[in-house]
Amino acid sequence: MTLTVLFAASDANWAEYAAPLRTAIADAGLTATLTREAAPGTVDYIIYAPSSPLQDFAPYTRCKAVLSLWAGVERIVGNASLTQPLCRMVDPALTEGMVEWVVGHSLRHHLRMDRYIVNPDHVWDPTCPPLARERPVAMLGMGELGTACARALKALNFPVTGWSRTPKAIDGIPCLHGEEGLDQALSSAQIVVTLLPRTPETENTLNARTLSLLPKGAVILNPGRGALIDDDALLAALDAGQVSHATLDVFRVEPLPQDHPFWSHPRVTVTPHIAADTRPSSACRVIAENIRRGEAGEALLNRVDRARGY
Amino acid sequence: MTLTVLFAASDANWAEYAAPLRTAIADAGLTATLTREAAPGTVDYIIYAPSSPLQDFAPYTRCKAVLSLWAGVERIVGNASLTQPLCRMVDPALTEGMVEWVVGHSLRHHLRMDRYIVNPDHVWDPTCPPLARERPVAMLGMGELGTACARALKALNFPVTGWSRTPKAIDGIPCLHGEEGLDQALSSAQIVVTLLPRTPETENTLNARTLSLLPKGAVILNPGRGALIDDDALLAALDAGQVSHATLDVFRVEPLPQDHPFWSHPRVTVTPHIAADTRPSSACRVIAENIRRGEAGEALLNRVDRARGY
Repeated sequence: MTLTVLFAASDANWAEYAAPLRTAIADAGLTATLTREAAPGTVDYIIYAPSSPLQDFAPYTRCKAVLSLWAGVERIVGNASLTQPLCRMVDPALTEGMVEWVVGHSLRHHLRMDRYIVNPDHVWDPTCPPLARERPVAMLGMGELGTACARALKALNFPVTGWSRTPKAIDGIPCLHGEEGLDQALSSAQIVVTLLPRTPETENTLNARTLSLLPKGAVILNPGRGALIDDDALLAALDAGQVSHATLDVFRVEPLPQDHPFWSHPRVTVTPHIAADTRPSSACRVIAENIRRGEAGEALLNRVDRARGY
Repeated sequence: MTLTVLFAASDANWAEYAAPLRTAIADAGLTATLTREAAPGTVDYIIYAPSSPLQDFAPYTRCKAVLSLWAGVERIVGNASLTQPLCRMVDPALTEGMVEWVVGHSLRHHLRMDRYIVNPDHVWDPTCPPLARERPVAMLGMGELGTACARALKALNFPVTGWSRTPKAIDGIPCLHGEEGLDQALSSAQIVVTLLPRTPETENTLNARTLSLLPKGAVILNPGRGALIDDDALLAALDAGQVSHATLDVFRVEPLPQDHPFWSHPRVTVTPHIAADTRPSSACRVIAENIRRGEAGEALLNRVDRARGY
């Protein structure tokens, strides 16, 4: 039987994904027509990005799953017409890229690299930084990405404490949860990484109150979602020296508007949403595997829990 | 029996080391007088740094070992009067610090961080870097430090090739050796780390010829010894774009003289010999353990091979 797989995403996505998707589908032993247009009642699977005009999923009565190209699903999870199973993208390459960004910027701040990268007065001050084992890290969000980053930091001796809204048990990483757990995790963290999913509950997780719990001079790394941090509270904490630096990869509006104070703040580094990118070749293998599972009646990978929103 | 342990190093070293040494010696179950002055014929062990005026080891006829506070022993290994066993410092904290510096700066260059740290035009270019698995690293020097760094980079997926003058077999890291092996290691390396000991054979390992073997745009990290690189050849390779950046922690003269071209070169980052520092608390435990071994007739740790010079 030939499956009909609708690719509902931008022209740019199509240019990048069409060839590796066809390869991955064939490699998974599936026979499918990959198309950008099909009568809704004939579609078996939808590969989706919010850049698509498709917003009404109701006519796709035969569709067995909507497979997101993106890790973040906040722009579709609330769509009432979407009753089909929804899967997030968990691309192994995306996890690798995220680990590299988080470990790299953690070490950058840990080693105080910026003072050597920009050193116009040629200052030679041979004071060593502490060791990573003396630099506690709080990882807010212990999903796929947060856990991978926590393990990589731990392997370099950083004492990592994980935090998530609901209890988690992760081998080798002490994990806290709930509001009290958050306060406790922040109270000793010299580096805070925000990798929570964006949900109504996680918005402004870092705000004036929670930022005030940090030891003075802590560093914030946000590769998760812009809305996890209250921008104004962060700017105030930076101005007060309570937070010594913030390196931010995600923003409430992207690209970050030229007049946003983050651009020119001396204690903020902006990276342009590059911490983790989906790589077509590995992402397409994940999608093809989920179609194979759907056809075989096996559980889908990375299925979104609508109640939690991720 | 009370041992006599002579501390032959600077006043500044004494201020840092005296207390943790006494603690470590006692913790090792030894009874010793730690002193800065003793009749040479009464000394059992010498704890040594080249900052000491002591240069003639001949009168120390009873001395069972000279225990260096430093990892690098090039300033004493050629001393003809030094016939006692000589041990380098291999401080676990020094290895940790070195791994942090090497992994941190490898990720900094891999992730092209500098363009975000200094971005006066507020450029938003969401082009992702490649993954670490696509960024080959050559580790020149596979001793204690090089091996630890190679393993840490490998754990982050960097394809690491080790090189040393003599053949080595290291689990999980392909190792090359000899002159041909060096040429092969350099020919595909996008990041080169120099962690060789300084010996007459390793001087100018990176020179005009070997730098020309690198793929265009490679990055050099030198946390080893200044003399491993021919400064003029490196500057020429930087000016030609053959090497895109050099981050250097060690120099032929330190502090790096203010008129050295490295200071103002836009493609050079100077770090002030901070990659790896001996930490008194852990170094003193290594020294005490070697005294214990000496007294017990066990093999000394980190004993220098005079023929090889390290």
